[in-house]
Amino acid sequence: MSSRVDEILSWYESDNPGVLANLRRMMMTGTLAGTGKFVILPVDQGFEHGPARSFAKNPAGYDPHYHFSLALDSGCNAYAAPLGFLEAGARTYAGKIPLILKLNNSDSLFSGDNPKSAVTGSVRDALRLGCAAIGFTIYPGSSQRNEMYHELRAISEDAKAHGLAVVVWSYPRGSTLSKKGETAIDVVAYAAQIAAQLGAHVIKVKPPTADVEQEAAKKVYDSEKIAIGTLADRIRHVVQSSFGGRRIVIFSGGEAKEETAILDEIKGIHQGGGFGSIIGRNSFQRPKGKAIELLQKIMTIYKG
Amino acid sequence: MSSRVDEILSWYESDNPGVLANLRRMMMTGTLAGTGKFVILPVDQGFEHGPARSFAKNPAGYDPHYHFSLALDSGCNAYAAPLGFLEAGARTYAGKIPLILKLNNSDSLFSGDNPKSAVTGSVRDALRLGCAAIGFTIYPGSSQRNEMYHELRAISEDAKAHGLAVVVWSYPRGSTLSKKGETAIDVVAYAAQIAAQLGAHVIKVKPPTADVEQEAAKKVYDSEKIAIGTLADRIRHVVQSSFGGRRIVIFSGGEAKEETAILDEIKGIHQGGGFGSIIGRNSFQRPKGKAIELLQKIMTIYKG
Amino acid sequence: MSSRVDEILSWYESDNPGVLANLRRMMMTGTLAGTGKFVILPVDQGFEHGPARSFAKNPAGYDPHYHFSLALDSGCNAYAAPLGFLEAGARTYAGKIPLILKLNNSDSLFSGDNPKSAVTGSVRDALRLGCAAIGFTIYPGSSQRNEMYHELRAISEDAKAHGLAVVVWSYPRGSTLSKKGETAIDVVAYAAQIAAQLGAHVIKVKPPTADVEQEAAKKVYDSEKIAIGTLADRIRHVVQSSFGGRRIVIFSGGEAKEETAILDEIKGIHQGGGFGSIIGRNSFQRPKGKAIELLQKIMTIYKG
Amino acid sequence: MSSRVDEILSWYESDNPGVLANLRRMMMTGTLAGTGKFVILPVDQGFEHGPARSFAKNPAGYDPHYHFSLALDSGCNAYAAPLGFLEAGARTYAGKIPLILKLNNSDSLFSGDNPKSAVTGSVRDALRLGCAAIGFTIYPGSSQRNEMYHELRAISEDAKAHGLAVVVWSYPRGSTLSKKGETAIDVVAYAAQIAAQLGAHVIKVKPPTADVEQEAAKKVYDSEKIAIGTLADRIRHVVQSSFGGRRIVIFSGGEAKEETAILDEIKGIHQGGGFGSIIGRNSFQRPKGKAIELLQKIMTIYKG
Amino acid sequence: MSSRVDEILSWYESDNPGVLANLRRMMMTGTLAGTGKFVILPVDQGFEHGPARSFAKNPAGYDPHYHFSLALDSGCNAYAAPLGFLEAGARTYAGKIPLILKLNNSDSLFSGDNPKSAVTGSVRDALRLGCAAIGFTIYPGSSQRNEMYHELRAISEDAKAHGLAVVVWSYPRGSTLSKKGETAIDVVAYAAQIAAQLGAHVIKVKPPTADVEQEAAKKVYDSEKIAIGTLADRIRHVVQSSFGGRRIVIFSGGEAKEETAILDEIKGIHQGGGFGSIIGRNSFQRPKGKAIELLQKIMTIYKG
Repeated sequence: MSSRVDEILSWYESDNPGVLANLRRMMMTGTLAGTGKFVILPVDQGFEHGPARSFAKNPAGYDPHYHFSLALDSGCNAYAAPLGFLEAGARTYAGKIPLILKLNNSDSLFSGDNPKSAVTGSVRDALRLGCAAIGFTIYPGSSQRNEMYHELRAISEDAKAHGLAVVVWSYPRGSTLSKKGETAIDVVAYAAQIAAQLGAHVIKVKPPTADVEQEAAKKVYDSEKIAIGTLADRIRHVVQSSFGGRRIVIFSGGEAKEETAILDEIKGIHQGGGFGSIIGRNSFQRPKGKAIELLQKIMTIYKG
Repeated sequence: MSSRVDEILSWYESDNPGVLANLRRMMMTGTLAGTGKFVILPVDQGFEHGPARSFAKNPAGYDPHYHFSLALDSGCNAYAAPLGFLEAGARTYAGKIPLILKLNNSDSLFSGDNPKSAVTGSVRDALRLGCAAIGFTIYPGSSQRNEMYHELRAISEDAKAHGLAVVVWSYPRGSTLSKKGETAIDVVAYAAQIAAQLGAHVIKVKPPTADVEQEAAKKVYDSEKIAIGTLADRIRHVVQSSFGGRRIVIFSGGEAKEETAILDEIKGIHQGGGFGSIIGRNSFQRPKGKAIELLQKIMTIYKG
Repeated sequence: MSSRVDEILSWYESDNPGVLANLRRMMMTGTLAGTGKFVILPVDQGFEHGPARSFAKNPAGYDPHYHFSLALDSGCNAYAAPLGFLEAGARTYAGKIPLILKLNNSDSLFSGDNPKSAVTGSVRDALRLGCAAIGFTIYPGSSQRNEMYHELRAISEDAKAHGLAVVVWSYPRGSTLSKKGETAIDVVAYAAQIAAQLGAHVIKVKPPTADVEQEAAKKVYDSEKIAIGTLADRIRHVVQSSFGGRRIVIFSGGEAKEETAILDEIKGIHQGGGFGSIIGRNSFQRPKGKAIELLQKIMTIYKG
Repeated sequence: MSSRVDEILSWYESDNPGVLANLRRMMMTGTLAGTGKFVILPVDQGFEHGPARSFAKNPAGYDPHYHFSLALDSGCNAYAAPLGFLEAGARTYAGKIPLILKLNNSDSLFSGDNPKSAVTGSVRDALRLGCAAIGFTIYPGSSQRNEMYHELRAISEDAKAHGLAVVVWSYPRGSTLSKKGETAIDVVAYAAQIAAQLGAHVIKVKPPTADVEQEAAKKVYDSEKIAIGTLADRIRHVVQSSFGGRRIVIFSGGEAKEETAILDEIKGIHQGGGFGSIIGRNSFQRPKGKAIELLQKIMTIYKG
Repeated sequence: MSSRVDEILSWYESDNPGVLANLRRMMMTGTLAGTGKFVILPVDQGFEHGPARSFAKNPAGYDPHYHFSLALDSGCNAYAAPLGFLEAGARTYAGKIPLILKLNNSDSLFSGDNPKSAVTGSVRDALRLGCAAIGFTIYPGSSQRNEMYHELRAISEDAKAHGLAVVVWSYPRGSTLSKKGETAIDVVAYAAQIAAQLGAHVIKVKPPTADVEQEAAKKVYDSEKIAIGTLADRIRHVVQSSFGGRRIVIFSGGEAKEETAILDEIKGIHQGGGFGSIIGRNSFQRPKGKAIELLQKIMTIYKG
């Protein structure tokens, strides 16, 4: 196979063959097969933002089958979605593309300062749907963070015992963080560390800015002259903060935006040693042809 | 059998034969058998509003047997009620009409801004009473929504594993929604999406108005020119928001009202591609003869 | 046996033979055997009000054996008490009189606006003590009502599966009800309905007054001209509100009072079709001879 | 054996032979063997007040072995302590003296108005350590009382099923009681009743004062002329309030004080029919010789 | 083997051979093997303070393998870390050095007055990773202390039953303690006592200052003339407060500081009879050579 894939798998030294098989499956799927790089299609916006805000721009996306086929046709490594969306296509697409069951989700009909997602699926659901992994979001910084860590701990132990990989979305948010601080480099690096310490196999964070949020961290970034000037610098720091590079860290695409902006960001992630991207709104809100075109440009960068 | 029923069942591709059998059973019962359309009789008002407000108008309704016979004689697809009401007639009517055990309920002797129903029955109760499905109410928008989603998640997993269909009443309500917003089109479509993502087989929402509640949604409804002018338009949007039409969505009848108003609403639901209605107070608060007459007029529209 | 008892048992059509046997046992015990009427002795006041307030008037009542013998000698259908009181006599009186283990209780050393009883025993306790039924109090109207309904749901499912009957004390109380409203006819009828919907076999409420508490209910009592003028009228309405008479509803005796007042109340309950009484302080706070005398006068009315 | 012990055991008529054997074991141990009276050594002050406040006066008490030997050498019926203290000596002293594992404890590094102890051990711990009983503290009057009753209910059911006796420390405390009210006669009698109703085999309360705390109780103490003038009167009332004398009630020694004061109190307890004492600080904070001397004087009174 | 090790093991008289084997394993590992003294490397700062603040000074520490090798090469008795860090090296270093899985952790992206760590691993994780012990932090003084004691109780029972040793970090912290009070001698001694009573095999506290925080304690320290003038005095008092020396008590190194300051502190701990140190930031934030040098100087003191 690919020696890079074998190298990456060697980092997960405590995991059972079931987990390793699923991690390998994701790394040997799609356009980036064998490179150790990832482009994942996530579609949880229907739950998070509502159907019209998510799918009206490209109404094909109302249909759950669309996203399976988009992920497959564009050569993604995996497709991630909540229970309902996976149930609605898992038999038709069984075995065609690795699936990640997103086990918790938030809606935006209620909102508060210290968010917590609801658990909306189970490891048993992931197994009956033939998934390769489970996905779970934590909000470090929320007053409810401990409850989320507890849920992840239990789910993660169960998932690993059943041979499923664990993908953690780590998004700092809460009453003691500034809005800007949510993507500050110290906070993003810390969020990656927390996910890694909680036992994540794959960590997803947002591309960090050059802000430093916490006073105690600022002192160290200054005194140790940690390079955070360019996106590539910051990605490198986040990868290092994820067990010195021994964990797969991928980055979200964020809000829908212009192609050039997206590709520039991807180049920064690639240069910094990031393992890939998870591209939601920027793919499924474009017409399918355009989306595939963009995703392949992204993959070309990661192959580079 | 009916090719329309087979088509609808094909959408539930992750479900086991037990669930499919119960969904088919509901679709092959009553006047609308084979059409893929639904008229369901729900009687949870005794718990929700108290006995006099529910049954004094037509005192036959104090007796739980009455509602079984009303549902049966009027040709409904199914009858839904809380534990006590089903226990009191399930043996007499065993096998005569599909039953839906309503697993959570609210009373109105206490009220607060962020409601949550109490769980008042179990999947095991549904099985011992010979039910085809369980029913569960969620209040998206309530600060207690996550607790309800958690309860539904566990109950739903259990129900599906035991071959029961899952019917979700999705009624937005809570401190961050306006009263008017509870039936706004964006909110109702969102409520349907949430129920679908949570794994509901059948989704029940209220007929939406042309209001748009959330600022972020308003932008999209405007920019994408989503048609919401007529009830049929809005129903079409709600059906689309329920996995592009891959989930059964039915609509509540709401408060007791004039026959013409009811039938106009049903026509709108039918034209918009809605899968049917769940008619409580407008049926059991009329004398039995009148109720059957009205229900059959409704069914005639859905057959059209 | 008694055709009235058979008739009553026929209403409990979803219950297993174990439950039916215990319901029959209570109805075939004591002076009222075979009539389908009930007089039950409940002694939970030691826990609810403290020992001196409960037993100092008739100090024989400090001894748990006293109440077993009082219930037996006066010809009651059953004796209900908390764990400690039953444990202290259950072997001596094993099989002599049906026992109801009161599974939750409140003390009055702490008090708040939205009460909830503590669960103080289990179905397993009821089984090892040879009980015929379990008793459980709910406070509809309390902000903690959902927690009580959840506890009752679980206990009730368990009790029924093990062949025990379920007796529910339904006492509206809480921050959104007026003191007077706790015994208002609409509220008491609603409380009976809730207990019935939660699956109670036997419902215990307080004798209602002619007040109507809730605005929405008032409209209906007026428009439908529901008769609530006499106690008999109100009892009839409560019995109707309990599944059109398909559930056993009994009434509490309330505070200690004069014999004439008690007997007048009993006559009203009897005329209204009530199934009987549960007489605590008015029996065990009188000397034994007097108590038996009073209870037999009450039974004579119910036999009438 | 002793007919008094047999008599006492006959009151526990619902308990299995395992529980009876352990109750008998406590009553057949030490200087008071066969009398049905108890002197128990409890040492939970290390947890409750900290090590220096507990042991500095007699530093031998820092060593857990000391208390086993003190209880043994002074002829106590049993020794009660939290998990750590028992684990540290249970093998050395296995079978030499009945042990009571104190299953919940409070520390005083945090304090609030409505206390609750933490559960710090389990029935399984009690069994592996060879204990005869478990001990549990409740604070009737605390807003958290229901949680404590729930914990006790579950632990007690489990303990009894495994043949362990249940000793309940019932100490009223909380925001709706005055400080003085915590030892008022009505409150202490009520606390004993609650423990008895919760199923305690042995009840421990504080010696009551002649205060009456609750208005509703005051009326009854006055009207029924309940004798509470002397300590003996009050003890008699507490014993009566514990199921008319059918439960073992023992009394705490309270704060360290002069020998004369202690012995006077013991005499009052004995005259009032109390079953004994639980003497902590007044024994282990004295030098061993002095402590044994005092305990034997106490036992002599109880033998009288 | 070592008679000192045998002596120490004899104190754990209630533990099963599995626990004793693991305690012995820790005491027979590294430079201090056979002395009954401990130097443990703990690395939970990545979770507690974030990656840059923890590892930027000595970037080798970003890599989880580094800490295993540092603990091994410096002759530590054991290495303690959260789940992620152990998972990332447990196979490579399997059987080379005893591991302690830190089962709960706090991050500093949210902070409040009454802290509680999140449970981030399980006894089952510790077993599958080949650990000798589990580690758990409690914050006596926090309003959430009872929840932590409950978690520790359950984890500890489970760990002991599976042959794992239990190491408790006892750090007083909370709204009713002053900042200075967190390391006051009375509070630290109390924290050690609490950990011991909760069943800890190894207790970790901070080196205490000469402050006395609590009024009630101050009286006793004065009246009993407890020596707390020197660090050695205070260590002696803490060891005495840990069951008269029958429990292993070790001390944290605290903030990074000068070598002389560290070694002076170690000498005080050693003179006072402390069982060793747990040195985090002062070891892994130095270059590896310097760290080993320092750790060996520390071990030399403890050997002395």
